[in-house]
Amino acid sequence: MTRIGSKTLSTRTPNARVSIGTDKVAYTIPDQAEIDAQFEALKKRNASRIRSGSKVVAVQGLGFVGVAVAAAIAGARDEKGGPSYFVIGIDIAEPSSYWKIAKLAKGESPIAAPDPELEDLINEAVNKEGNLAVTASERAYSLADAIVVDVPLDVRDRFALDPNDIELNLKSFENAIRAIGRNMKADALVLVETTVPVGACEKIVFPLLKEERERRGLRGRVFLAHAYERVMPGPGYMASIRRFWRSFAGIDRDSSARAREFLSSFIDTASYPLRELEDTKSSELAKLLENSYRAANIAFIYEWTLLAEDIGINLFDVIESIRVRKGTHDNIRFPGFGVGGYCLTKDQLLAQWGASRLFASDVKLNVTLNALDINARMPLHTFELAKELLSGKIGGKKVAICGVAYLPEVGDTRNSPTAILVERMIKSGADVVVHDPCVKTWPEKPGLRVFQDMKECIKGADCVIFAVPHRAYLELSAQALLKYRLRSGAAIVDAQNIISDDKAARLRGAGYRLAGVGKGHWRKKGYQWAKERA
Amino acid sequence: MTRIGSKTLSTRTPNARVSIGTDKVAYTIPDQAEIDAQFEALKKRNASRIRSGSKVVAVQGLGFVGVAVAAAIAGARDEKGGPSYFVIGIDIAEPSSYWKIAKLAKGESPIAAPDPELEDLINEAVNKEGNLAVTASERAYSLADAIVVDVPLDVRDRFALDPNDIELNLKSFENAIRAIGRNMKADALVLVETTVPVGACEKIVFPLLKEERERRGLRGRVFLAHAYERVMPGPGYMASIRRFWRSFAGIDRDSSARAREFLSSFIDTASYPLRELEDTKSSELAKLLENSYRAANIAFIYEWTLLAEDIGINLFDVIESIRVRKGTHDNIRFPGFGVGGYCLTKDQLLAQWGASRLFASDVKLNVTLNALDINARMPLHTFELAKELLSGKIGGKKVAICGVAYLPEVGDTRNSPTAILVERMIKSGADVVVHDPCVKTWPEKPGLRVFQDMKECIKGADCVIFAVPHRAYLELSAQALLKYRLRSGAAIVDAQNIISDDKAARLRGAGYRLAGVGKGHWRKKGYQWAKERA
Repeated sequence: MTRIGSKTLSTRTPNARVSIGTDKVAYTIPDQAEIDAQFEALKKRNASRIRSGSKVVAVQGLGFVGVAVAAAIAGARDEKGGPSYFVIGIDIAEPSSYWKIAKLAKGESPIAAPDPELEDLINEAVNKEGNLAVTASERAYSLADAIVVDVPLDVRDRFALDPNDIELNLKSFENAIRAIGRNMKADALVLVETTVPVGACEKIVFPLLKEERERRGLRGRVFLAHAYERVMPGPGYMASIRRFWRSFAGIDRDSSARAREFLSSFIDTASYPLRELEDTKSSELAKLLENSYRAANIAFIYEWTLLAEDIGINLFDVIESIRVRKGTHDNIRFPGFGVGGYCLTKDQLLAQWGASRLFASDVKLNVTLNALDINARMPLHTFELAKELLSGKIGGKKVAICGVAYLPEVGDTRNSPTAILVERMIKSGADVVVHDPCVKTWPEKPGLRVFQDMKECIKGADCVIFAVPHRAYLELSAQALLKYRLRSGAAIVDAQNIISDDKAARLRGAGYRLAGVGKGHWRKKGYQWAKERA
Repeated sequence: MTRIGSKTLSTRTPNARVSIGTDKVAYTIPDQAEIDAQFEALKKRNASRIRSGSKVVAVQGLGFVGVAVAAAIAGARDEKGGPSYFVIGIDIAEPSSYWKIAKLAKGESPIAAPDPELEDLINEAVNKEGNLAVTASERAYSLADAIVVDVPLDVRDRFALDPNDIELNLKSFENAIRAIGRNMKADALVLVETTVPVGACEKIVFPLLKEERERRGLRGRVFLAHAYERVMPGPGYMASIRRFWRSFAGIDRDSSARAREFLSSFIDTASYPLRELEDTKSSELAKLLENSYRAANIAFIYEWTLLAEDIGINLFDVIESIRVRKGTHDNIRFPGFGVGGYCLTKDQLLAQWGASRLFASDVKLNVTLNALDINARMPLHTFELAKELLSGKIGGKKVAICGVAYLPEVGDTRNSPTAILVERMIKSGADVVVHDPCVKTWPEKPGLRVFQDMKECIKGADCVIFAVPHRAYLELSAQALLKYRLRSGAAIVDAQNIISDDKAARLRGAGYRLAGVGKGHWRKKGYQWAKERA
């Protein structure tokens, strides 16, 4: 591995032999001979661990989930206090992935997370215990007693909502499963954590494993289970794996039993007992359903947001008063800017695809897909609020968007709704700048500089839009904002209930025009009744 | 009041001068002169209470809410332990309502509720303390310091979902408000508890009160507030008023302050602090929104129910595993039979009507109205399951439907989804019988006898449908059911997860055919994978 530290390296046209991480450090990708040699070295170096009967776990895919899961498994301890497993993290030698292997090899997390537990676990496993190694060689699966699948399985187009139009990036997932089948021990447990279409374990993973195993002359049973993760970016990142509920199901009784034993070894099942489901398709459906439910709840509030704005109601206030009803209404969502992330923006499509393609079901998830559609359009409402404040004239205006991550206090930009607003603004001729205190680069929009200095970003702006409720924005006083020298009479759009009514009054007093998602009481119609009575 | 106790009295063509209660007891309705005389007697009888400075509260409307609210207010105690109020319950001298006055006058609740607290409070107030009286005279409003509005405000047609088609039964509500305006003291507080369209207090109640007051030459301010109830039928009936969260808003600061003081006097606000909203339209919207949210959550699961049945999944099991996620997913609904009751089946329409008609808003609550539509159709899915089991032949079959109430363990049949199933079955030529352990008569379907003896009801049935999860059904063993002598090979449809898998196996063993809402694992497709692998 040659490290090419460089801040000036362009991320737009990476050399095919180089893999560049989110921190802009570039790593040359080894060729197959090098990979093989490295793997042999790994085997030799860890010969005692691999041979001594201590169990070996391979984690396939070192993304947001795989890295954390590998760290959690490496952190499992046996009765004597020693590591329960020797863990091998595996990813592919491609520009998009290899940097993760390289970083992890040094004991650093490829994922920047505001949870020190992740870095601690990785550091401990790689640098102290030495029970976490990485490789790009698929031959590593041949060492494993359990193989955990954490590779992505995405849709081609998140905006193709018709059941007939949904297409998956199935090839890379199938290749990953085949790589396991080509190399796995006959009786290794394959545990799929990837969120997959309903039916995938039975109808995609099992047949592929069987085919590859039969090609090698392996005749024994396949031990296969599904146990979806509930990983949450943020300060509870590792807790969301180690100390949280987990559901699972095996394709048969023995697979279930082995999955249960394995999961119990690195999850706090005393506090969070495992939930065994009837079959893998139930487990697959559960994950898709729970994310679809969350997304539908977010979509539900959208039309009420429009109504509240139209008739002069502060919907935040109303919803706070409803959320006191614990157990039935406490998860009703506040108005907001949009939905991002890897899951809530596509799991609905995996459900529909699985139903239609794997089971030939006629059922159409209309409500669910409609919610996905509403959420995808939601950022355009913030665009409309900005447009209204700017009297319809956006061309040539400097529009500063504060917030690029899809959640507060994290640097995760995957499918950030800000991207939709940025695109719409640029299409209308706006001069768009973006700021985010938690995001250094925006992998999905590499051409757009993410300002770290808010003052520098919003200075002279005709319009400032708050899109993410980062603490830095919530704590910003009206006085501080006034010092940032927006253009006189600038528009400020609060899409995340960041600006209090008091602060709004001060900003209005300074000549700024304000609008807020769900803040009907800020609009003229809100004063209609008061006027009528006066 | 002449009591005509009669079990043979037909409830279908009541004499216009008679009001018949749910217990089939008939009361002759007094004429205006009698009403006036009764009211004078009431005033004389309670002269000391009315004069002595103890506050008088009028409760308008003695339905599910009014009766319980009147009981709660009568149960309020001052520092010395005496009643805080003299309460007058008021309803109109009409066949649909008068029996409530008559029953309450005897110290009996017109509402049969499985909550002893209600009967206890009424008995105490009417027979012991003597601080709860009733009348049909609107002149009673003239005595009150606070007037609580609990009259219904319904839509004409719960199935007319297009914003342009929604019509309300506004006349009776308006008449009720005018009656208050015609009689009220100048400075009495009017507290609307009725669920009303958003904007109603400002744009309907206030102008009507003002108009009637001006006609009387009353020029002072109107004290008006909205404080919606969250009454739940069932064992926690009174607790849902006295020991639960309450939101409210006045039309101005003084109205709010008076509403706060009044509500605090009979609600446990130490444990459940009041939530004051910005204006009455916010309070009105909050109620409509929280019920719409609940209804949307019920509707959401419907398409997943169809999917689970189609691909062989036990959705109950899956949802139980998801509900462990407290605060975000614990209110995800189980599959079910349908939605009934007074609120969840129409509040969406009040929201849309208020938005369109009172604010001229263009916003259409598409997701919300679609959910209402789905819920209204939901019982037809149970019909389809029955039809499938009966090989499409329903004509002439004896179909026994177990469960008429809209909730378990209550006798409340308002907008029961069973009505929709009954109508569909009858339309298909079925010979329909119904059973419910909690319901003696079905006011909305007076022609249909509600069996109290389950054996008698389902004997010889070709099809039994469980529509309500009453305890009596849940506790019914397979053995007991087998003794009830259904027709051999009869169909059993479980729309409420009443029959466990073990019980189902026994029933299947006895030759019955089974289907269940959300019970995909009972269907043939559920065994597809097992077969493929075998």
